[in-house]
Amino acid sequence: MADLSRLDTVIALAQHRGFVFPSGDIYGGTRSAWDYGPLGVALKENIKKQWWNAFVRSRRDMVGLDSAVILPTAVWEASGHVKVFSDPLTESLVTHKRYRADHLFEAYEAEHGFAPVNGLDDIPDPEHPTKIGQWSPIRQFSGMLKTYLGVVDDESGLHYLRPETAQGIFTNFANVVQTSRKKPPFGIGQIGKAFRNEITPGNFIFRTREFEQMEIEYFVKPGEDEEWQQKWMDAVWAWFIDLGMTESNIRWFEHPAEKLAHYSKRTVDIEYRFQFAGNEWGELMGVANRTDFDLRTHAENSGKDLSFFDQANNERYIPYVIEPSFGLTRALMAFLVDAYDEEDVPNAKGGTDKRTVLHLDPRLAPVKVAVLPLSRNEALMPLAQQIADSLAEHWDIDYDDTQAIGRRYRRQDEIGTPFCVTVDFDSLEDAAVTVRDRDSMQQDRVPIAELEAYLAERLRGA
Amino acid sequence: MADLSRLDTVIALAQHRGFVFPSGDIYGGTRSAWDYGPLGVALKENIKKQWWNAFVRSRRDMVGLDSAVILPTAVWEASGHVKVFSDPLTESLVTHKRYRADHLFEAYEAEHGFAPVNGLDDIPDPEHPTKIGQWSPIRQFSGMLKTYLGVVDDESGLHYLRPETAQGIFTNFANVVQTSRKKPPFGIGQIGKAFRNEITPGNFIFRTREFEQMEIEYFVKPGEDEEWQQKWMDAVWAWFIDLGMTESNIRWFEHPAEKLAHYSKRTVDIEYRFQFAGNEWGELMGVANRTDFDLRTHAENSGKDLSFFDQANNERYIPYVIEPSFGLTRALMAFLVDAYDEEDVPNAKGGTDKRTVLHLDPRLAPVKVAVLPLSRNEALMPLAQQIADSLAEHWDIDYDDTQAIGRRYRRQDEIGTPFCVTVDFDSLEDAAVTVRDRDSMQQDRVPIAELEAYLAERLRGA
Repeated sequence: MADLSRLDTVIALAQHRGFVFPSGDIYGGTRSAWDYGPLGVALKENIKKQWWNAFVRSRRDMVGLDSAVILPTAVWEASGHVKVFSDPLTESLVTHKRYRADHLFEAYEAEHGFAPVNGLDDIPDPEHPTKIGQWSPIRQFSGMLKTYLGVVDDESGLHYLRPETAQGIFTNFANVVQTSRKKPPFGIGQIGKAFRNEITPGNFIFRTREFEQMEIEYFVKPGEDEEWQQKWMDAVWAWFIDLGMTESNIRWFEHPAEKLAHYSKRTVDIEYRFQFAGNEWGELMGVANRTDFDLRTHAENSGKDLSFFDQANNERYIPYVIEPSFGLTRALMAFLVDAYDEEDVPNAKGGTDKRTVLHLDPRLAPVKVAVLPLSRNEALMPLAQQIADSLAEHWDIDYDDTQAIGRRYRRQDEIGTPFCVTVDFDSLEDAAVTVRDRDSMQQDRVPIAELEAYLAERLRGA
Repeated sequence: MADLSRLDTVIALAQHRGFVFPSGDIYGGTRSAWDYGPLGVALKENIKKQWWNAFVRSRRDMVGLDSAVILPTAVWEASGHVKVFSDPLTESLVTHKRYRADHLFEAYEAEHGFAPVNGLDDIPDPEHPTKIGQWSPIRQFSGMLKTYLGVVDDESGLHYLRPETAQGIFTNFANVVQTSRKKPPFGIGQIGKAFRNEITPGNFIFRTREFEQMEIEYFVKPGEDEEWQQKWMDAVWAWFIDLGMTESNIRWFEHPAEKLAHYSKRTVDIEYRFQFAGNEWGELMGVANRTDFDLRTHAENSGKDLSFFDQANNERYIPYVIEPSFGLTRALMAFLVDAYDEEDVPNAKGGTDKRTVLHLDPRLAPVKVAVLPLSRNEALMPLAQQIADSLAEHWDIDYDDTQAIGRRYRRQDEIGTPFCVTVDFDSLEDAAVTVRDRDSMQQDRVPIAELEAYLAERLRGA
């Protein structure tokens, strides 16, 4: 695979091994979305589980929520999405590439010192400066996907698919406070799908029209927001490191003040070194200080009181919100890329072989243990299946009795399986199996009676 | 709550305690969808986990998948949904109720012995037989929700939100066979959202436009399909019973041959005794024999080979498919209704008090253990919090230091918490706590050092 970039190699592996498939590929596929195969869904679920355990279940200041994808249109009008999530687009009649008209006007003004008098008629094609004014009419392009509920496709039934899970949290703020007895500082976590009408989906699962988010809205007393933004920045960074992310492959990116989203006082992203063609770093997640913008606008638009009354201090306030927002599918892609390695390992002939291995943290690995009978033998296979079924009560297990044992080890290395349990002919005598460690490739002989405890110790939290 | 039906009482409890909220209720809500609060999301996740463990993870003949909501339109054309999932609707200008025009024509013909010569002009309003021909023009009403991908809202960008998760499994059949080395009989399981433009959403979370499914497509050799349909019927029935569903509250419903869906050879539903007004039983899940309809039509429409080559017998066939399809949110509603109980329990005054309790299986209960300091005391609270944090490494925990202990027990009973751990002043001396069992209300004194093991034994699989 010397011709492929490292990133392309990982993407090829992910498709070849059944982590991710192009959605609907028997019909030519769609660039909008991807399907997660048996290993991909396991990896994705493991990331969700670790996130939920770390940020929701184990914290007394957090609760969970799961709100609907299609919320009333009034929610998106209040949040500003109907207005702000819409861009004026035009298409070059020369190259058929799409551009934001306002960006073209800005570029013109920056060059000439005045605005284009005749609008698009004055604007050259960026790639063909002699072709001037060859543009389609400007159309408003909504970043939200529309749908229509009810019998007829008119404006009365117009709804939007959520472009972020956050708004469902804000609209339930009062419900959660009332039923859960939580007080600021406290947060609400949610994992779920979001949809955006991306103009240019691409880079594998990095930018898709359908994706999954893991979002926290953390409600604090105004004035404590800056301190809590820092605490959350520390917590989310530590989460990635704890799950094995290489620290030199992530970095902070501070959004410049003039480019902040309409709701934000400060936004800081963690970027991962994806090494895209032409773009080394890509956004992995962000921690935004949304101030009281959302609760305030929802209170104003709905007429409901979304303030919090602090009984202890006898004061009422609209909480500020710190939002750690993760792209689940981006995190999956980053963990995959980060775990990928090609190693030279000694072979039996005194030379070296190349070994491809995913050094995924055992908690993330889609398969925890592979159970491999040494050969397709009538005595070995039932024993191996019995071991596999018994371990499957605790972990995701693969049972594989095909091909030579060396090829099976290679396959398990490629999908990041931390442990291979080999059942051989000695096992029938000594009631023990060989356990091979993915990273060190060392092999331990372990009595079958002690196998579960041996693995449990090494798969803690998985 | 004597004025409410049992079902209404459970629905009121579910909203009052934060299981389920009307989606977007600060804006007047929508009948289309519901949001799941802290307890609801935990209960829903627990059902998913039990389902996945039972039907996917623990079985060597099953793998998982997570396909996209928005698949290429060609998928829905091939599956028959674009054609079949569409009804001709008309609205009475008298009552503004909507009717299927074909049903009106059938009723007319049944009564008169001939078809209505002038179409709707001959048809009376069903509720006002003297008002004839007062109908809006017939419009095709698609049961699928549309959306538009790309820059312009024209037919080139028309896409549908999936009305079932199943099709994403069929389109990935070849991908999964190739990457997972599975052979029939084997199945693919998937949990995810689906969307239907229901004409009359209602009955709480029973019929919503946005809902979650847990679906299995199980691929078998033709001729083995009837046997496998029976095996799956047994397996899904046993799953509900194992998780505590009252056997007399569920029953089988065999779809009459003339009413089978276009793809089905036989469909059998499990119905639950929801006791809706006017409808005692409601569909909980179904087991359908989809034959080779889906793989065959996708093969024909895509031009891809979706047959399976059985090397051992040197024969090629398109597998038949048995589909156990669960409504996740319906299962949640059924488990809630089934667990609800009102009991008379003796009080200190020699009389009885009413106790409301959810007898949820501990594996499903949203909170496994509540940790309660006897009072808001400076010595008790830190110890109780320390115990709560330590148990939270394993289970969903509630820590509650508000109100009198009796009210806190009542609250935990109402949300189905299997165990309450009370930290009292003796705990500071004897390093032990009182563990109260939800169902028997018996109390055990348990040393703090043994608490985790005590609970682990009683929360096995949770």
